[in-house]
Amino acid sequence: MRVTQPLQRNLQQIPNEVATIDGERRHTWAEFVDRVARLAGGLHQLGLKTGDRVAVIGLNSDRHMEVFFAVPWAGGVIVPTNYRWSAPEIAFSLNDSGTRVLFIDRAFWPLVEALRPLVEDPLTVICLDDALPGHDAVHDELIAASAAVDEHVAGADDLSGIFYTGGTTGRSKGVMLTHGNHVANTLQFAAMIGLSPDIVYLHGAPMFHIADALYIYLVTHLGARHVFIPRFEPAACAQAMQDHAVTDTILVPTMIQMLLEQPGFAEYDLGKLARLYYGASPMPESVAIDLIGKLPWVAAYQLYGQTEAAPLLTALDARYHVTEGPLAGRLRSAGRAVPAVELRIVDESGAEVPRGTVGEIVARGPNIMKGYWGREDLSAETLRGGWLHTGDAAYMDDGGFIFISDRLKDMIISGGENVYSTEVENALYQHEDVAQVAVIGIPDEKWGERVHAVVVPRDGTQPDPAELMAFCRTLIADYKCPRSVSFRDEPLPLSGAGKVLKTELRKPFWEGRDRQVN
Amino acid sequence: MRVTQPLQRNLQQIPNEVATIDGERRHTWAEFVDRVARLAGGLHQLGLKTGDRVAVIGLNSDRHMEVFFAVPWAGGVIVPTNYRWSAPEIAFSLNDSGTRVLFIDRAFWPLVEALRPLVEDPLTVICLDDALPGHDAVHDELIAASAAVDEHVAGADDLSGIFYTGGTTGRSKGVMLTHGNHVANTLQFAAMIGLSPDIVYLHGAPMFHIADALYIYLVTHLGARHVFIPRFEPAACAQAMQDHAVTDTILVPTMIQMLLEQPGFAEYDLGKLARLYYGASPMPESVAIDLIGKLPWVAAYQLYGQTEAAPLLTALDARYHVTEGPLAGRLRSAGRAVPAVELRIVDESGAEVPRGTVGEIVARGPNIMKGYWGREDLSAETLRGGWLHTGDAAYMDDGGFIFISDRLKDMIISGGENVYSTEVENALYQHEDVAQVAVIGIPDEKWGERVHAVVVPRDGTQPDPAELMAFCRTLIADYKCPRSVSFRDEPLPLSGAGKVLKTELRKPFWEGRDRQVN
Repeated sequence: MRVTQPLQRNLQQIPNEVATIDGERRHTWAEFVDRVARLAGGLHQLGLKTGDRVAVIGLNSDRHMEVFFAVPWAGGVIVPTNYRWSAPEIAFSLNDSGTRVLFIDRAFWPLVEALRPLVEDPLTVICLDDALPGHDAVHDELIAASAAVDEHVAGADDLSGIFYTGGTTGRSKGVMLTHGNHVANTLQFAAMIGLSPDIVYLHGAPMFHIADALYIYLVTHLGARHVFIPRFEPAACAQAMQDHAVTDTILVPTMIQMLLEQPGFAEYDLGKLARLYYGASPMPESVAIDLIGKLPWVAAYQLYGQTEAAPLLTALDARYHVTEGPLAGRLRSAGRAVPAVELRIVDESGAEVPRGTVGEIVARGPNIMKGYWGREDLSAETLRGGWLHTGDAAYMDDGGFIFISDRLKDMIISGGENVYSTEVENALYQHEDVAQVAVIGIPDEKWGERVHAVVVPRDGTQPDPAELMAFCRTLIADYKCPRSVSFRDEPLPLSGAGKVLKTELRKPFWEGRDRQVN
Repeated sequence: MRVTQPLQRNLQQIPNEVATIDGERRHTWAEFVDRVARLAGGLHQLGLKTGDRVAVIGLNSDRHMEVFFAVPWAGGVIVPTNYRWSAPEIAFSLNDSGTRVLFIDRAFWPLVEALRPLVEDPLTVICLDDALPGHDAVHDELIAASAAVDEHVAGADDLSGIFYTGGTTGRSKGVMLTHGNHVANTLQFAAMIGLSPDIVYLHGAPMFHIADALYIYLVTHLGARHVFIPRFEPAACAQAMQDHAVTDTILVPTMIQMLLEQPGFAEYDLGKLARLYYGASPMPESVAIDLIGKLPWVAAYQLYGQTEAAPLLTALDARYHVTEGPLAGRLRSAGRAVPAVELRIVDESGAEVPRGTVGEIVARGPNIMKGYWGREDLSAETLRGGWLHTGDAAYMDDGGFIFISDRLKDMIISGGENVYSTEVENALYQHEDVAQVAVIGIPDEKWGERVHAVVVPRDGTQPDPAELMAFCRTLIADYKCPRSVSFRDEPLPLSGAGKVLKTELRKPFWEGRDRQVN
C-alpha cells in the first residue's frame, strides 16, 4: 500500500504504453519510471533523507507529476502548494512543514525571491523547466545527471504528503495523508467507476489541489494515460480534449460553466469524453442541466470530499444525472458514501440526526487523514471519537443521499433561522439574467445577519433587484430570499481551487465587525 | 476497514432492496442486518467473547451467510469449514483453532456425533436449519429470541476469519485473514470489474472455500443481490441462473465443463449472465473455447489466487478471452496482478527471474494474510522477506501476464526435466475422446518419476493409449508426454473446492514409497 507501487506494476505490465502527454512531449511508462527513479537519485544527491518534505509550486505538467512520484520514491514527503497564495502564505506552509527543497516553474519564479527572506531554513530550489538565476538545480538536468535509485518501500501508515488547506481564512493547516490513505481512496474510487486502462485523463484543474491530485494516483493505478494543460482555460481545455481523445477529467462547476458557455463550444469534437467529474464546490442545478443538454453522452459524477479524506467521501453517479424518470430528483445531491467510507449526519453532541435533518457530516474509513501536521489539539478535535468532522452541513435522505447545505461557517443565521447560501444561489441561478451569483451574510441591525446576493449579470442585461428577489420568493421560503442585491461587472473572485472567495465578498460589509460563525 | 461495515452502508442506502434469495425465502438488507445483529446478540448470550472462534459447516444458504456476518458483528472470528473433510480432519481444525461454537446444517448432522469424542473442548452446536437431537440452539430461534446488539467495530488488523487449507495433504494450516485483508481484496476486485448495484450473484461453488467466500464480502460491498443453491449441480445451477436473472457467478473449471456439457444446456435462458469468473484450478483451453462458443455474450474472467491472499492475486480480464485478433494468445494465462498487488516470479534465492523463465510466484499487498494460526515458523517461512511465497510455479511474459505451470508440489520431475502437468493435460484435452484427464507422476525405476495420464473417456469411446500418446507428441515436447495411460469410468475425484484430488489418483502407485516434492 504505497503510492509508488503502481509504477512497478505499469513497468511490469505496460512499459511501452504512453504514460504522459504534455504538449509535444510524450513518455512511456518505462521512460516515466526511469525519470522518476533518476530524479529520486538526484534528490538523494541533494541530501534528501527519508521523511524530508519537498514542496512543488507549478502549473500542470508531466514534470510536476514526476515530482509527485519521485519524492516518495526517494522516501520523502510531498507538499503540493497552491500557487495563488501570497508569498507570506506559502512561506508559512514551508516553515510550518519544515520544507527545505522546492520545485518551481518559471511562471512563479518571482515568488522565490519573495520567499527567501521569509523562510526559516535555506531553500534548495529546483527549476521545473528553464534554468533561471539563483537556482540550485534544473529538473531535466538532475534526471540526466543522476543514476536511478531503488524505490523506497513505504508502509501504509507512512506519511506520503502534506496538503495545506484553509488558506483562504485564518491559519492554514497541513493535512497529513499517508500512503495507505491515497491507495485506499484510489481503490474506493476505482471500485465505483470500474478500472479501465483505456482512460485518457486531462489534468485541467490545478494539480496542487487534492481534487486533481487524486487522479495523479488513480490514473497511474489504472495504467491509463495522463494529458496536461498548464492551467484551465476554456478553449485550451476543449482543444486538448479533442486533440488527445480525452475520456475523463475533473473540473469544478465554475470551470464546467465556462467550458460549456464559451463561444464555439459546439464546434469541438468531444465525442470521446466519457466521464466528467465535478466537485470541490456545489454545482448549480442550472449548470448541471446545461451539461446534460450539451454533452448528453457524457456520464457525469458529482464527487464530494475534502483534503482530510484524501479526498473522496461520496459520489453521485451518472444514473442520477437525469431530470426525468424514476431516478430523477437527486441532481442536487452530492451522492452516497463510496465503498468503505462510513458516513453519518450528526448533531453537536455527535448523535446521528433523523433523515432530512441538517447536521454535520462525519466520516471514517481507510482514507481519512492521519491528522494535521504539528497541530495535535486540532487533530484530536477534528478526529474526535474516531470520526472526521468535516465542518460541512448536510442532510441525508431515505436513500442515503446527502444534500450539502453549505459549509457550516458559510451558513447565514438570520433572525435565528439558518439559511444555507447554496439553496439561495440555486434559486437565483435559475433566473435568465444571472451569470454568476454568490450569497453571503452581511450585518443587519435587526436580524444579526441579512441574506445578500452578489450577482454578475449576463452580458447585455440589467436585472432589477426587486424583480430578482420576487423571483426568488417563487422558489424558496421568504426568509431565505435575499434582502439586498449588489452587482459586479467582473467575474466572482475564485480561490486557486476554483471556489468562490466569499470571504473577499464579505469583507467590505464586515469592516470593523466580528462575524460569529459556528 | 471491517467486513461488517458494508452492512451499515446498505442499511443506510438501500434498506428495502432484496439482499438474499434462498429458495422461497427472501430478505431485504434491513431484514438481513436485523437478523445478523440479533444472531450476534444470541452469540453473546451463549457466551461469545471478542476474538472467540466460531466454525460453520453447511451447504450454501442465506443462513450460512448470516453466520459469516453475525460472528464478526459479535466480535468473533469465523472458521469456515470444508464439509468434505473427514471428522478427524475437521476435529483437527476445531482443536487447532480452539473453536467451541459450531453452526451446522442437517446435511452434516452425523458429523456432530463423530466430532464430539475428538474435540478437546465441549462444542456448543447451533443448527442452521431444523432442530435435531442434542443441539444447543437453532439459528432462527436464536434470532427470534435475541435482541439486536451493536456492531463490534473491529480494526483493520484484527482477525476476521481463519480459513483452513491444505486438508488434502498433510497437516492443514489455519490461514489468518484480517478485516483489512478482506476489505482490501474486495476493493481490489471491485476496482477491476467496476461496482454495479445491479449484480445478481449466484453462490454455486461452496461458500466455505475462499473463492466463493470472497463474493460474500464483495457482493455485500456492492449492495447487490445474493442467490444461493445448496451445492453445485449443473441443472440446479442453470435453473437458478435463469429463474433469478443471475448476472455473476464463480465456478471452478470442472463445474463450468459440467454446466456446459449437460443435456439440454441450450434450452436455459442465461441471457442475463454477464460475468463468469473461474479459478481455483487451471482452465483447460478446450473448456475455455467451449465457454466462448456457447456463452458468447458472457465476459469471462480467470482469477488466480490462494487463501493466503484473501484470495485474489491476478485476473485475466474478458478482453483476453478471445482466440483471434491482437489480444489472442493469453487464454492460457492467469492474467496480471490486480491493483495494489505486487507480484514477482523468483528463483530459490528470492531473485526475480527473467521473463519467460519458470519460478515461484511471490506477492505482497494489503490482502496478504497475517500468518498461519499457531504456526509462527511456517508463517515466517511463507512470508519471508515480506513476500507471500505461494508455492505456485509460473512464468511471466513481456506484458506481465503469468502462466501458471503447476503447483510446485504437483510438478513431475522425470529424468531431471520438470514436467508441468497442466501443460500435458491441456494437450490431452484437445483429443476428441477425452472427457477428463489428470496427469500425475508415478514411480519409475529409470527416471525417478514417469508422466502418467488418468483419462475418463467420452461416452461410447475407447481411446487407444498408444494413439493418445502419439497425439500428445504432436503438441508438446516428447519428454512431457505420458509414458502410460489408465482409464476410469467414473469422474475424477474432486476436493470440496472442485480441484482434482491428485493425491488420491497417485496413491495406488506410490503405496509404500516416498514421493519427493519441492
